[in-house]
Amino acid sequence: MNVYRYEQNPLVTPADVKPHRADFEVIGAFNAGVTTYNGEIIMVLRVAERPISADPEIVKAPIYNPETNELEIFEFRLDDPAYDFSDPRVIRENGSTQGFKYLTSLSYLRIARSKDGHQFTIDDQPFVYPSNELEVFGIEDPRVTKIDDTYYIYFSAVSPVGVGESLVSTKDFITVEHHGMIFAPENKDVLIFPEKINGKYYALHRPVPKSVGEPEMWIAESTNLLYWGNHKYLLGLREGMWDSGRMGGGAVPIKTERGWLELYHGATTDHRYCMGAVLLDLEDPSKVIARSDKPILEPEADYEVDGFFGNVVFSCGAVVEGDVVKMYYGVADTSMACAELSLQEIIDSLTYIK
Amino acid sequence: MNVYRYEQNPLVTPADVKPHRADFEVIGAFNAGVTTYNGEIIMVLRVAERPISADPEIVKAPIYNPETNELEIFEFRLDDPAYDFSDPRVIRENGSTQGFKYLTSLSYLRIARSKDGHQFTIDDQPFVYPSNELEVFGIEDPRVTKIDDTYYIYFSAVSPVGVGESLVSTKDFITVEHHGMIFAPENKDVLIFPEKINGKYYALHRPVPKSVGEPEMWIAESTNLLYWGNHKYLLGLREGMWDSGRMGGGAVPIKTERGWLELYHGATTDHRYCMGAVLLDLEDPSKVIARSDKPILEPEADYEVDGFFGNVVFSCGAVVEGDVVKMYYGVADTSMACAELSLQEIIDSLTYIK
Repeated sequence: MNVYRYEQNPLVTPADVKPHRADFEVIGAFNAGVTTYNGEIIMVLRVAERPISADPEIVKAPIYNPETNELEIFEFRLDDPAYDFSDPRVIRENGSTQGFKYLTSLSYLRIARSKDGHQFTIDDQPFVYPSNELEVFGIEDPRVTKIDDTYYIYFSAVSPVGVGESLVSTKDFITVEHHGMIFAPENKDVLIFPEKINGKYYALHRPVPKSVGEPEMWIAESTNLLYWGNHKYLLGLREGMWDSGRMGGGAVPIKTERGWLELYHGATTDHRYCMGAVLLDLEDPSKVIARSDKPILEPEADYEVDGFFGNVVFSCGAVVEGDVVKMYYGVADTSMACAELSLQEIIDSLTYIK
Repeated sequence: MNVYRYEQNPLVTPADVKPHRADFEVIGAFNAGVTTYNGEIIMVLRVAERPISADPEIVKAPIYNPETNELEIFEFRLDDPAYDFSDPRVIRENGSTQGFKYLTSLSYLRIARSKDGHQFTIDDQPFVYPSNELEVFGIEDPRVTKIDDTYYIYFSAVSPVGVGESLVSTKDFITVEHHGMIFAPENKDVLIFPEKINGKYYALHRPVPKSVGEPEMWIAESTNLLYWGNHKYLLGLREGMWDSGRMGGGAVPIKTERGWLELYHGATTDHRYCMGAVLLDLEDPSKVIARSDKPILEPEADYEVDGFFGNVVFSCGAVVEGDVVKMYYGVADTSMACAELSLQEIIDSLTYIK
């Protein structure tokens, strides 16, 4: 697989983003949804900020209060025996090995714009910010599907009651309409197809069940993009492979002659995140045709290996021009990068099922 | 609270149900959805059957194979160190304290009919049986909502990829139309309201998130009963109370002058299941008006305390006649019982919010 990483990578870093409050610092500008608008490439960045802590023994957790519409800052001492601070992203109750009680940063959406896809200008203000009780811990990992003249932007809404997927829409990247939560907890990595297929909209989604089952990919259908049903299991983890631990949709599905090409992320159980691809039937996207036995992109560059949470390449969007797939992707839960791949090469690299 | 338990309780027991295969035994006839049809009270029973094991050292797990449309029987030795058999309902991988790998019984739906609501005649054959890859471990805990002349029956579909909620419909309790999975894993205890409210259908549901959040009640809306969205968090666990461990909807919401009355189940963390009630706003059922501080029904009778999984009362349906609520309920994951309560007394017993 020929992968051309841009010389300017990482294209956007936390240092490029002005904090939205003077007492906060930006620690991530990553996992951006990507689309084109008015001749520009638009990144809808996930920006993660945390309250500045003068005391290294104090960890702070920012919490959005939907009743006052203000952020509240909770403080924890690193030596507090009630909590586990070993994962820098989260605060866990001591003894619990998974999940979290609080997040150490607040994520929201912010726009970056580019004429050439390499040099981006970042808006001064947040674009979509937590605004209700389902977004108390922030909003994460947006994707953007353009249908007609409307851009549908959907993201993980994170709060103490769960992580689900919420939807907003815009026509101009200024005014935003809110459509509520479209996939109930626990769910992430929703990808809405860019057109109806035989009269129905489709979306990939990635539930995280508790009693039985794994974080794997499902597909659902809709007539209005707001209400979803006929959920079907689509694609599972593969023991011993690059997508053995968890997985989820990445970029908006790309229509090709051979099928719908989905660029998806997979991780091993030790959290090494790679990108691969799956090909779905054009007429019935609940049918899997072919799949990557090996990743099409792995964390190899310095900026992919090192960072806030290293060894991560995680795409939430791509721009396709002819055979060129410009895959934008978050690196190390820190910054944004881009790599160009050949659409044909990706398709040729897949292993066909049966 | 005056509770009149029927003298004939339990009304239906496993001994009353003929196994659907000669090599199986019925171990549960419980958690029935309830409705009325042609002047009769219909129970849509959850029947649980397990393969007869001649060797007490062998535990068997029945698995539906959607490709062959046959049951397969997996066998496990009780001394197999790979598995934990301490919960008679499930087989866990050793070391895992929650969830399950296999179930020890297969559940499906079967109909019981009664003229008087006390004496039931049970159909000879299954009514709805596992029929696809999302039902490999069985189907459980049906509820029935009648809208116009159609009965919508929905239940937990259980398989290795998760537990979600699937929907079928019937007009005659003979012919069944399948509508697929309406709530993706992990979800149970869906309750569809019996009429549109301001132009939309509503359903309660009970996700079980993994990373953050608890098994609590949510509400969603729909225009066609098949596709659901605008998920909102509705009702949570209460520390130290009867619903501190888990909870979920029970009977189809009952329309009263004061609001929609939902009879729901709550359990403590040591798995004592009780029934209580919550009152929701008539015009906007996402608003909670009042709630039971104490249960309206607790496991007290012998048949509620002792059984396959004791200390459980769990209602999936009620019939309301004037002020009389005939609450049918599963007891001890084994049998069906019924208790009559006064609608007015239930409403008067609630504690109003704020």
